[in-house]
Amino acid sequence: MFKTNFTPGPSQLYVTTEDHARKAFKELIPSLSHRTKQFEDISRNTTDGLRALLNIPANFSIVFTGSATEIWERIIQNLTEETSHHLVNGAFSQKFYDTAVQLNRKATLTNAEPGKGFSETVVVPQTELIALTHNETSTGVSLPLNVIDKLRDSHADSLIAVDAVSSLPYPNFDFTKLDSVFFSVQKGFGLPAGLGVWIVNDRCLAKAEQLLSKGISIGSYHTLPSLVSMAKKNQTPETPNVLGIYLLAGVVDDMNRRSIQTIRRETEYKAAILYQALDKHPLINAFVKNPADRSKTVIVADCGAHTEALTDHLMKKGMLPGDGYGSQKKSQLRFANFPAHSKEQYELLVDSITEFNI
Amino acid sequence: MFKTNFTPGPSQLYVTTEDHARKAFKELIPSLSHRTKQFEDISRNTTDGLRALLNIPANFSIVFTGSATEIWERIIQNLTEETSHHLVNGAFSQKFYDTAVQLNRKATLTNAEPGKGFSETVVVPQTELIALTHNETSTGVSLPLNVIDKLRDSHADSLIAVDAVSSLPYPNFDFTKLDSVFFSVQKGFGLPAGLGVWIVNDRCLAKAEQLLSKGISIGSYHTLPSLVSMAKKNQTPETPNVLGIYLLAGVVDDMNRRSIQTIRRETEYKAAILYQALDKHPLINAFVKNPADRSKTVIVADCGAHTEALTDHLMKKGMLPGDGYGSQKKSQLRFANFPAHSKEQYELLVDSITEFNI
Repeated sequence: MFKTNFTPGPSQLYVTTEDHARKAFKELIPSLSHRTKQFEDISRNTTDGLRALLNIPANFSIVFTGSATEIWERIIQNLTEETSHHLVNGAFSQKFYDTAVQLNRKATLTNAEPGKGFSETVVVPQTELIALTHNETSTGVSLPLNVIDKLRDSHADSLIAVDAVSSLPYPNFDFTKLDSVFFSVQKGFGLPAGLGVWIVNDRCLAKAEQLLSKGISIGSYHTLPSLVSMAKKNQTPETPNVLGIYLLAGVVDDMNRRSIQTIRRETEYKAAILYQALDKHPLINAFVKNPADRSKTVIVADCGAHTEALTDHLMKKGMLPGDGYGSQKKSQLRFANFPAHSKEQYELLVDSITEFNI
Repeated sequence: MFKTNFTPGPSQLYVTTEDHARKAFKELIPSLSHRTKQFEDISRNTTDGLRALLNIPANFSIVFTGSATEIWERIIQNLTEETSHHLVNGAFSQKFYDTAVQLNRKATLTNAEPGKGFSETVVVPQTELIALTHNETSTGVSLPLNVIDKLRDSHADSLIAVDAVSSLPYPNFDFTKLDSVFFSVQKGFGLPAGLGVWIVNDRCLAKAEQLLSKGISIGSYHTLPSLVSMAKKNQTPETPNVLGIYLLAGVVDDMNRRSIQTIRRETEYKAAILYQALDKHPLINAFVKNPADRSKTVIVADCGAHTEALTDHLMKKGMLPGDGYGSQKKSQLRFANFPAHSKEQYELLVDSITEFNI
């Protein structure tokens, strides 16, 4: 049994999650009807809290889905008639592209080399939707925020959707430069899986309504117009994960009390000491070389032949690293750096990696 | 605060649900990666338990979704190219039909009068899919199982899908007479909402594969071929509601120990005493008159001008009735009769209704 889970999602629970769950059972939340004022209050607490935490403007709606994977599908269904363009630098940005292909869109992509990302010089064709992955969970490559700003300037008519599944609440997005952001709660928010959060502006809604008026199917219960009109009443089209929404309200409230500035500063500190340790280490290295591409929230180490020994070494100290993704399972380790991971836990991780020697 | 929740979903938690949740946190289930053997074991426990409880044959797969509402959409996407026919006797069977229309299918329907159901004489046109609602949660009308048998005989080439959201685990379905059944866990299984369970046979899978081979989009991550191929490995395409799947395994295991025969017998006993009380009552009546149409699991009472007074009367005794659905909110009450509701709780409910007098 380990004490700290560094797997990049589902990951370590936020320190207050279990307390909120205990309180939820006491307050009968798991059997609460979603068609009650009490549910609407919970739902409003969650979205108001997120608005404050992430500084989300009023022209954005916040709606709930079953997963972030579902949001890939809803974005393609609701925001594109024919085309989308995807910046791909790993397995998850690739899957976002695959979703568009499966929904019979003429999707195009720009590939980055493994472990590399995109800069302001990236060329994107004219398209209905630009699909970006802020943090590629498989490779630990992050997208510099100025790339988003640049794309907004050069593609005023495209919608820009940003997958921030494994980075929020860390990134300080400028919501005037994008149209949609989304995440799932089992990563940076330290909650049980089973809830996706989709943040969308009025341009997205207008696009979905335009497709609908052309007779194009944009889904059924989770069309964007249906989600947004219910969200205006703090409601959902279907019976949602009520407990998940309640727990998210609790954790977001705790994060607001701790302050997003503190969370961001601590995230940067923890990332800095881990990258420093990897850069100095004689046996293992950071997979992502270019500092501008390095994710602050999912840090990937090339461990080669030492992967298993390092895992054992860390497990003996009560720390569970995440396996490398896909073909890198035996040669890399991934370390989540989420708000649930304390500075002390990160310092212990860094010391343990530093002292690791065969 | 009430002690017993008779709302038809989310409803009273099963008596062991909270214990399973406490155990889940102790075992770190809420932060368990779904790409582990431990998750696969949990997933297999859940599906093996359901197979035993409901006597599900080997040619059926059991897959997980975010909600039963999602399953309406997946059924239409994966099991129909053009047509579906719906037996409609309330708001939820109507929504199943609406889903098909929203997905641009040529859907047709047969309507029953309010409070009435369908018998063996119902005429259904030739169609790709017959969509049935075993238990209409809005009106408390149930579909006699021999109607399903008859439709199978007369429509050998159609797929038959049965919405059993608010009746399972009660009905003893003959799985040779249908192709798909589904439910959500917050009703008869007494669990927190946020998980749908879709039971589908190999004919459904073949149909989805046939549509795919024609170049028709059947969705992305939750296509039936994707769900079934992952389920064969006790896996899911996306990060699922791991905690929900774990809790379902626990409750299904408890139900198997109690035995499905006992659960069915108790359900029938509780339904019988409540209908008897309603039939004898001077002020309130059962909404569904025909005994063959009467649901055993959601019992609807016409309370007219007495609705508010009866609600107050029951609430004073610690019992929360469900509101009437939609336009019946002020004139009907609904009572869930799920395995979570004990005989003693039902006897108290029945006594309290019997003694109710203005």
